[in-house]
Amino acid sequence: MIPSQMIVFLFIFLQSYTSLAYDPDPVNDYCIPRTEFSSIFLSCKNTSLVTVDDFIYSGIKDPGNFKHTGFSSIPVSSTVFPGLNTLGMSFVRADFDVDGVNVPHFHPRATETAFVLEGKIYSGFVDSGNRVFAKVLEKGEVMVFPKGLVHFQMNVGDSPATILGSFNSQNPGLVKIPSAVFGTGIKEELLMKAFGLNDKEIAKLRKKFVPQ
Amino acid sequence: MIPSQMIVFLFIFLQSYTSLAYDPDPVNDYCIPRTEFSSIFLSCKNTSLVTVDDFIYSGIKDPGNFKHTGFSSIPVSSTVFPGLNTLGMSFVRADFDVDGVNVPHFHPRATETAFVLEGKIYSGFVDSGNRVFAKVLEKGEVMVFPKGLVHFQMNVGDSPATILGSFNSQNPGLVKIPSAVFGTGIKEELLMKAFGLNDKEIAKLRKKFVPQ
Amino acid sequence: MIPSQMIVFLFIFLQSYTSLAYDPDPVNDYCIPRTEFSSIFLSCKNTSLVTVDDFIYSGIKDPGNFKHTGFSSIPVSSTVFPGLNTLGMSFVRADFDVDGVNVPHFHPRATETAFVLEGKIYSGFVDSGNRVFAKVLEKGEVMVFPKGLVHFQMNVGDSPATILGSFNSQNPGLVKIPSAVFGTGIKEELLMKAFGLNDKEIAKLRKKFVPQ
Amino acid sequence: MIPSQMIVFLFIFLQSYTSLAYDPDPVNDYCIPRTEFSSIFLSCKNTSLVTVDDFIYSGIKDPGNFKHTGFSSIPVSSTVFPGLNTLGMSFVRADFDVDGVNVPHFHPRATETAFVLEGKIYSGFVDSGNRVFAKVLEKGEVMVFPKGLVHFQMNVGDSPATILGSFNSQNPGLVKIPSAVFGTGIKEELLMKAFGLNDKEIAKLRKKFVPQ
Amino acid sequence: MIPSQMIVFLFIFLQSYTSLAYDPDPVNDYCIPRTEFSSIFLSCKNTSLVTVDDFIYSGIKDPGNFKHTGFSSIPVSSTVFPGLNTLGMSFVRADFDVDGVNVPHFHPRATETAFVLEGKIYSGFVDSGNRVFAKVLEKGEVMVFPKGLVHFQMNVGDSPATILGSFNSQNPGLVKIPSAVFGTGIKEELLMKAFGLNDKEIAKLRKKFVPQ
Amino acid sequence: MIPSQMIVFLFIFLQSYTSLAYDPDPVNDYCIPRTEFSSIFLSCKNTSLVTVDDFIYSGIKDPGNFKHTGFSSIPVSSTVFPGLNTLGMSFVRADFDVDGVNVPHFHPRATETAFVLEGKIYSGFVDSGNRVFAKVLEKGEVMVFPKGLVHFQMNVGDSPATILGSFNSQNPGLVKIPSAVFGTGIKEELLMKAFGLNDKEIAKLRKKFVPQ
Repeated sequence: MIPSQMIVFLFIFLQSYTSLAYDPDPVNDYCIPRTEFSSIFLSCKNTSLVTVDDFIYSGIKDPGNFKHTGFSSIPVSSTVFPGLNTLGMSFVRADFDVDGVNVPHFHPRATETAFVLEGKIYSGFVDSGNRVFAKVLEKGEVMVFPKGLVHFQMNVGDSPATILGSFNSQNPGLVKIPSAVFGTGIKEELLMKAFGLNDKEIAKLRKKFVPQ
Repeated sequence: MIPSQMIVFLFIFLQSYTSLAYDPDPVNDYCIPRTEFSSIFLSCKNTSLVTVDDFIYSGIKDPGNFKHTGFSSIPVSSTVFPGLNTLGMSFVRADFDVDGVNVPHFHPRATETAFVLEGKIYSGFVDSGNRVFAKVLEKGEVMVFPKGLVHFQMNVGDSPATILGSFNSQNPGLVKIPSAVFGTGIKEELLMKAFGLNDKEIAKLRKKFVPQ
Repeated sequence: MIPSQMIVFLFIFLQSYTSLAYDPDPVNDYCIPRTEFSSIFLSCKNTSLVTVDDFIYSGIKDPGNFKHTGFSSIPVSSTVFPGLNTLGMSFVRADFDVDGVNVPHFHPRATETAFVLEGKIYSGFVDSGNRVFAKVLEKGEVMVFPKGLVHFQMNVGDSPATILGSFNSQNPGLVKIPSAVFGTGIKEELLMKAFGLNDKEIAKLRKKFVPQ
Repeated sequence: MIPSQMIVFLFIFLQSYTSLAYDPDPVNDYCIPRTEFSSIFLSCKNTSLVTVDDFIYSGIKDPGNFKHTGFSSIPVSSTVFPGLNTLGMSFVRADFDVDGVNVPHFHPRATETAFVLEGKIYSGFVDSGNRVFAKVLEKGEVMVFPKGLVHFQMNVGDSPATILGSFNSQNPGLVKIPSAVFGTGIKEELLMKAFGLNDKEIAKLRKKFVPQ
Repeated sequence: MIPSQMIVFLFIFLQSYTSLAYDPDPVNDYCIPRTEFSSIFLSCKNTSLVTVDDFIYSGIKDPGNFKHTGFSSIPVSSTVFPGLNTLGMSFVRADFDVDGVNVPHFHPRATETAFVLEGKIYSGFVDSGNRVFAKVLEKGEVMVFPKGLVHFQMNVGDSPATILGSFNSQNPGLVKIPSAVFGTGIKEELLMKAFGLNDKEIAKLRKKFVPQ
Repeated sequence: MIPSQMIVFLFIFLQSYTSLAYDPDPVNDYCIPRTEFSSIFLSCKNTSLVTVDDFIYSGIKDPGNFKHTGFSSIPVSSTVFPGLNTLGMSFVRADFDVDGVNVPHFHPRATETAFVLEGKIYSGFVDSGNRVFAKVLEKGEVMVFPKGLVHFQMNVGDSPATILGSFNSQNPGLVKIPSAVFGTGIKEELLMKAFGLNDKEIAKLRKKFVPQ
């Protein structure tokens, strides 16, 4: 007989786990997380259970739905494409409506190379000395955004635009500046001082970004 | 006789170099960059020329001068303390006047552990899921800011406060959100869409952060 | 007066250098190798001389010329796109004529994610247990080739096909199996034993792959 | 009472696991995988259960059995010598009968240093520019095979020969070119085009390397 | 019904585990080990269960108790401060009574930056060429001890002294030379030869350092 | 005409350089340091100048000369075998006369696998919890010494013994405990307290290890 306390533990365990892994050199060819228990243990499927479909991702053939900024992105990290686990890469499809904007953001754990699949895109980043490097990219051009630096994009063409971004981390992370700063509970007084705004201005910004 | 073109090259070379290095495992005990040519080549001093003073930094005994946000920081990377070169660490002294604020910022290349030397400091960070983790720290407490995440601090005590921050990179980098976003030349239209502000509001923010 | 021996050294130096760098975490935002001396020293341009064009690559808008296998590739490592230096990424555009083949090959220093820009491509890799994982990919699908494993592709559609490959190394390297094994001077006797072929069969293979 | 479904899961779990680990810097002195559950979880034995025998390997005192190529190898990765787990190293004993051949192969995750314990061995590798570096090594000499590059060896002496190879990965992987290319199910048409061979020639090669 | 053997296994498992992790780049923002099972599996708490207190350490506000060498240290690795898990940093508070000594020791897995919080401390390290770099540090000064090198400290002031050390590993390890060499069961004969001491002298040293 | 000051600089430069490199993933197949300037710049020979001999080391066929402890070692790092540069490995040949001792030592930057080529060798290491793992190894056995931990060896057989050690760093470093602690200028008072010895005992130890 198993003590009931352990059963409870096991169930909590099944419900509240976030996988952990690292981007450095793998020690196996690949490691497809186990399906049944993938949410529990850091373990790989037996290789005999792995199939070619574990290494193929078909979910970015079409754009996602545009949000109010005329922008849509489908990030594909190891969470949604387990074949990437331990392999140190991931990618994203980003679609821009006319005038659509990818707000200033950064990826805390990866460099990004962004390839323009379609359209004309104003694209740039800010280095840690506060210099902006920005330019309009055309179809077929590639821009590199160095690891951890703030970057942004806007469709400046007459038709929708699309970018394929690639990352050198299986889970690069994403921090969108407007919502990270104004959509979270950072003390109002601190934000007022930091941005030189009064309480009404901060409140207005907060209303836009704090999730309802 | 040396061709004059080469002389010109060498001089240009002397004037326009930024050192390059990496944080991973060193292959020597240490590598003190050569003084005369440190700005030119990635080379280490001969060990016989290295002295104990190469490994000691004395420039953070006292606070720096407060800026208008009531904050002062002395970052000590391998640039100012060459003994850190190749060793994967650096540090910073931060002083806060009463109500002083360290604006939301992040370090693209390092985790930070912040030790409160003096005072009461509201301190926190935002994870990539937009959750804030913030609390008032007292003297002797330590908070860890995970690699690449936005964090911030404010003196909420009645007297000046001081923090010693340590980094696991010899050059962690520093991106201050307000000036990186509003103090650089990012297209106004993009910022308007990203923050939901009109042109006057953006212009007002820019005036504060664009260097004159 | 400079000793003539040193002048000679400097000239040899200018002519016979291959750059060295590492893929791990950078310690600067970026490091654009110096143009004049980039072939000589591991040094970065002064940041004031860096421009946005250093971070943009425009050379893969169009396909290259097909070779006899109906295949063309334009690899873009840090050698041709210096902005990638120290950032741990690079990419390749590969075009396939109808029936075109990308011969079995591997990249010794990187994982690859391959995105199908156009066409239908039979695509696969062999793991170190000699299992093949292969399938026909359609436009918009992505396949991951784990670090260092042999992979291959063939256009199985009715029209030209194109792939965009991304790597998590600034210089992934490329070893094409047929030419690496039969196009180099490996002792004939060894190849005969290794492949179970006679001297005529090896000679025939060699004639195809040894550069004239 | 435990749900039967979970029991089933646990049993599947016990039977179909491949361990996962990484070569980078360890965070413990060592980590001997637990015996009972080593096939299940990425966990270390309690240090009090660790003994000196966990750090000693005695299985390469004698050569293995020669295969038809007059070659025998005993690779010792962390799978067979758990003491190597997390320590970033492994090794191999390779024995060569007279004329014995170690077929062209590579290790996707490690550099190798090969020390000649006995005999005269023709030994070499091919770099990614298709240059061969090969020579006859004598007893006591060491050759280094850079990470991920194709290398090969043949006993060219009059008596058996032995090599001790060391790797800087706990699980370097091994891809033997002949069987990886011709012993797996890669599409015949692709191989014909890649090697410039007709269908009979490919079929002949396949018969040798496809496992029966 | 669960087989009794498995229950036994699970219990052994619960009792004899040492966590495993690596210092390289994390792939999540953070990973707070699960409380109930932290001693069992390498898993992270669900982020919704993580609180700000997981990232704050309050246990080094006061010095520990002095030992007979007039020294006290409180090392804070990821074992006692789980918030450090996967973030590549840790720290230590060291207090020195007058004349107190931190015996020659080293950290196998980290560089240390030591900041003098209070007092005058003779502080130094020995490089692998047997050169000592030592000096008296004053309040506010920082010394860096390169990764893996032997270092030592002594309070040479008239009042107690305190140091805050930071490490670039979540678990740097600590090897104190006197007890590691003389307090363990290394063969007496080997120690006699190594230090040029007779059996009585070795016995005397052992008596001091072998735990009773 | 070149300014004389620069000539002076260049000469100082030629005389006082220690090469710098890192063990992480290389970005080229190999990097043979340039011969003429290898002592000056971190640069690789042009690949066309590289020969097979750059990758072969022939200097450990025979033992070195025994020192007074009946021990001799020939460490082969990238300094003496440049072909190892950037490849993350090195090795050592160690010979033991009867009763010969390899004093307690450690390598700050590498794990070691030690293969017994000849003889019977008492061999062990101390973990950071002060546990000794030691045993007599016989010919053909291998012991692993985890990164940075103190280890030692003694010939306990009736004839000379030989070990081949391999490291996962191109320059693992070597710290011999007796000379590092007693053969350097560490303050006498500190050593007295650390080892519980009086001034005469420390003086006696110092006389043995301080180089004359």
